[in-house]
Amino acid sequence: MQLTPIYETLLKLRTGQVRSNDLSRACLDAIHDPAGEGARAFIRVYDCAKDIPANGPLAGLPISIKDLFDVESEPTTAGSTLLRHSTPARNDAVVVQRLKSAGAVLVGKTNMTEFAFSGLGLNPHHGTPRNAFDRENARIPGGSSSGAAMSVTDGMSHAAIGSDTGGSVRIPAALCGLTGFKPTARRIPLEGVLPLSPSLDSIGPIAPTVACCELLDSVMSAESCSPVKTARIPDVRVGVLQGYVLDGLEPEVARAFQDALDVFSRSGARVESVEFSCLDNILSANAKGGFSAPESFAWHRSLLEEYSDEYDPRVLSRIMRGRDLSAADYLDLLAARKRIINSAESAFDGFDAIVLPTTPRVAPRISDLVASDAAYFDANIAMLRNPSVFNFLDGTALSIPCHRPGQPPVGLMIAGLAMWDKKIFGVGKALEAALTEAGCATHCAGHKALEQIHR
Amino acid sequence: MQLTPIYETLLKLRTGQVRSNDLSRACLDAIHDPAGEGARAFIRVYDCAKDIPANGPLAGLPISIKDLFDVESEPTTAGSTLLRHSTPARNDAVVVQRLKSAGAVLVGKTNMTEFAFSGLGLNPHHGTPRNAFDRENARIPGGSSSGAAMSVTDGMSHAAIGSDTGGSVRIPAALCGLTGFKPTARRIPLEGVLPLSPSLDSIGPIAPTVACCELLDSVMSAESCSPVKTARIPDVRVGVLQGYVLDGLEPEVARAFQDALDVFSRSGARVESVEFSCLDNILSANAKGGFSAPESFAWHRSLLEEYSDEYDPRVLSRIMRGRDLSAADYLDLLAARKRIINSAESAFDGFDAIVLPTTPRVAPRISDLVASDAAYFDANIAMLRNPSVFNFLDGTALSIPCHRPGQPPVGLMIAGLAMWDKKIFGVGKALEAALTEAGCATHCAGHKALEQIHR
Repeated sequence: MQLTPIYETLLKLRTGQVRSNDLSRACLDAIHDPAGEGARAFIRVYDCAKDIPANGPLAGLPISIKDLFDVESEPTTAGSTLLRHSTPARNDAVVVQRLKSAGAVLVGKTNMTEFAFSGLGLNPHHGTPRNAFDRENARIPGGSSSGAAMSVTDGMSHAAIGSDTGGSVRIPAALCGLTGFKPTARRIPLEGVLPLSPSLDSIGPIAPTVACCELLDSVMSAESCSPVKTARIPDVRVGVLQGYVLDGLEPEVARAFQDALDVFSRSGARVESVEFSCLDNILSANAKGGFSAPESFAWHRSLLEEYSDEYDPRVLSRIMRGRDLSAADYLDLLAARKRIINSAESAFDGFDAIVLPTTPRVAPRISDLVASDAAYFDANIAMLRNPSVFNFLDGTALSIPCHRPGQPPVGLMIAGLAMWDKKIFGVGKALEAALTEAGCATHCAGHKALEQIHR
Repeated sequence: MQLTPIYETLLKLRTGQVRSNDLSRACLDAIHDPAGEGARAFIRVYDCAKDIPANGPLAGLPISIKDLFDVESEPTTAGSTLLRHSTPARNDAVVVQRLKSAGAVLVGKTNMTEFAFSGLGLNPHHGTPRNAFDRENARIPGGSSSGAAMSVTDGMSHAAIGSDTGGSVRIPAALCGLTGFKPTARRIPLEGVLPLSPSLDSIGPIAPTVACCELLDSVMSAESCSPVKTARIPDVRVGVLQGYVLDGLEPEVARAFQDALDVFSRSGARVESVEFSCLDNILSANAKGGFSAPESFAWHRSLLEEYSDEYDPRVLSRIMRGRDLSAADYLDLLAARKRIINSAESAFDGFDAIVLPTTPRVAPRISDLVASDAAYFDANIAMLRNPSVFNFLDGTALSIPCHRPGQPPVGLMIAGLAMWDKKIFGVGKALEAALTEAGCATHCAGHKALEQIHR
């Protein structure tokens, strides 16, 4: 798999080497290919090949959006069937408006874990798309932004917009060999986005490279489109997060992660262990269901009265955990979060980025998880464990591929605290370049095209 | 009762006409007067007559603080006995630091409803001070900042700092014939203040005039000390809030309020009714105990296990209402608050201030409320009803006296939404001047001294 970074495509669009119509047509063909995964990756497809947007930083680029973003006059279904006949959205979600204003062409809405409430990407209503790296064995794409990642690996879009509440952008990016970015939540408006957990929800891109994510992020946050400077590796102090985030790594993950750290050290970065003594407190604070259970229960409460039999039972069971939490427990959780964030600020002080494996495992088979609730919940807990740390910390994080070509995809998380986003992009681009040079990652940064596109 | 505005006192201090030591000594004498209310108005008294602060906008001014502000190396007891032996505070509360830095002299910590959880001011542990206006009949001072208001009316301090979660600054100000100010909560840091309900808690002054409150507020918020311009009455559009806030007014209140509106109209202000259709929704949103019950329960939960028999039973019963609220109900309340605030923004748009009676009743007798739970809770609900609207709306509000001299004190609330604080000060000074000129209120603004002190 060799994907084209979006800024290269954008440059070709600008210089007339390709036409937006043709790109859209190719995406639609890939979606409609009966041998492909389009039927399971997309919930709604737009007749976009006729759109010819005029200008903007994303002019003419076909992208996909997750099925939880409002698009005017459509019901927003979030991967469910029960919302099929809900009131159509009156407006586009703010991010959708911004993407359209920037010239992006929407190819469709991607499949997802129902209501975004799992990190695996299984969807019993619309089917589960098969991960591109090992299609025969039908492995999961990761979730909840499952179709989002698939749309990029399978040429059904050039980039995808997902949401990340506990890892829902970073997990599918990691398991599919892509780059995913979870911003500091407050930077990108959640207006018009169907919520899972408003305390944790954030909106982020999945795309081939860090610079692709940065460009999409700048459009969605309505911040400057000029990219941050790539960090100089010898200036970078990387903290390798210790503790349970390193437990139970599958051999492929442990190897790829260690290789990446070796590459960084050899490139001159300062790679140090970082202890964060309150890490375990996140687990205990979340023991009664965390934010997602009560916040989703509050949102779904009235729907549950009427439609509980139409929910994915595994999603339903996670929502229902929120029913019995008391207000005082919820307030304790808020207070604990505040304390833990304060302690993280001390622990991470002086580092340019915190790194850890995005997930401890590579993508398991869909059939194994469909067959067994125990296997499903075990895998789900494992996949969410590391990414969710940075949702809880109100932080920011990239996941970039760090496996060798031909190996199962493994994600490296490059993370930080609230509003470290620009710093993380600068460090992320440097670490990505180091991995690319060492032959670990699949994409090259293509800085020349990038510089031209950012003008 | 004719009190001296603090800026007049400050001017005398600056020009050497009075000495801080002597002012402090006079306050201490008033506190220790066995015929006075000091024993019930203060929980802790400082040996302050020896302090000679050097400079700052409040240099040398004796003030009191409510018993819920941290002072370094003292336990903060919030009017309780059960916290007598709690861990001493490590630092002064931020507002205490700011007041001290501004040169204020702390005379002591004032009595309050235990844990600030009632609007009446009764305290079974420390006694209830008797309102100055009708001492023989032993009427309530109002609460929860009961001792705060008493300290000002009785010459035991020149101004008082309280907290306001549902009216705890404005109610005692109204019932004691003083001016009280509830700022937009976020403007003044709550660090080092024992919480009642962090969603609603705010910190405000009680003092003789609006300009006194403005000066104290500018110190506590660390904003500019230059006062806002007093509004020109003919430019002012006043909205008279309609609905349940006008129900059940006692004749003294109805008369004083109507007189005040007539004065404003005659002075050239535009006085109009304002309908706020979501007002009733505040009551329904709060039906299960609002924010204070669950938020105080969460804070007190561990103390309750050990000390529940040491709580004022009426306070305890209000805290315990929070035990059974679910997280989802709490989240619904948060969502309702957001919607209601949005609707208030439309309803109040174009007005310079919203006015309403601070309380529907004048101060009842202490003995009647001590004798009967029914009378206590009935009076408590009545007193909190109007002020709490603006805590719920995250707004700001002054209460200024509007009764004729010799009549029972009645408060006029001059209120607005979040961050209207400066506007409310400008309008408040104008309306106060109009009332003073008409002989309705007890204090004159003394602008000459004020201008000099603000230099």
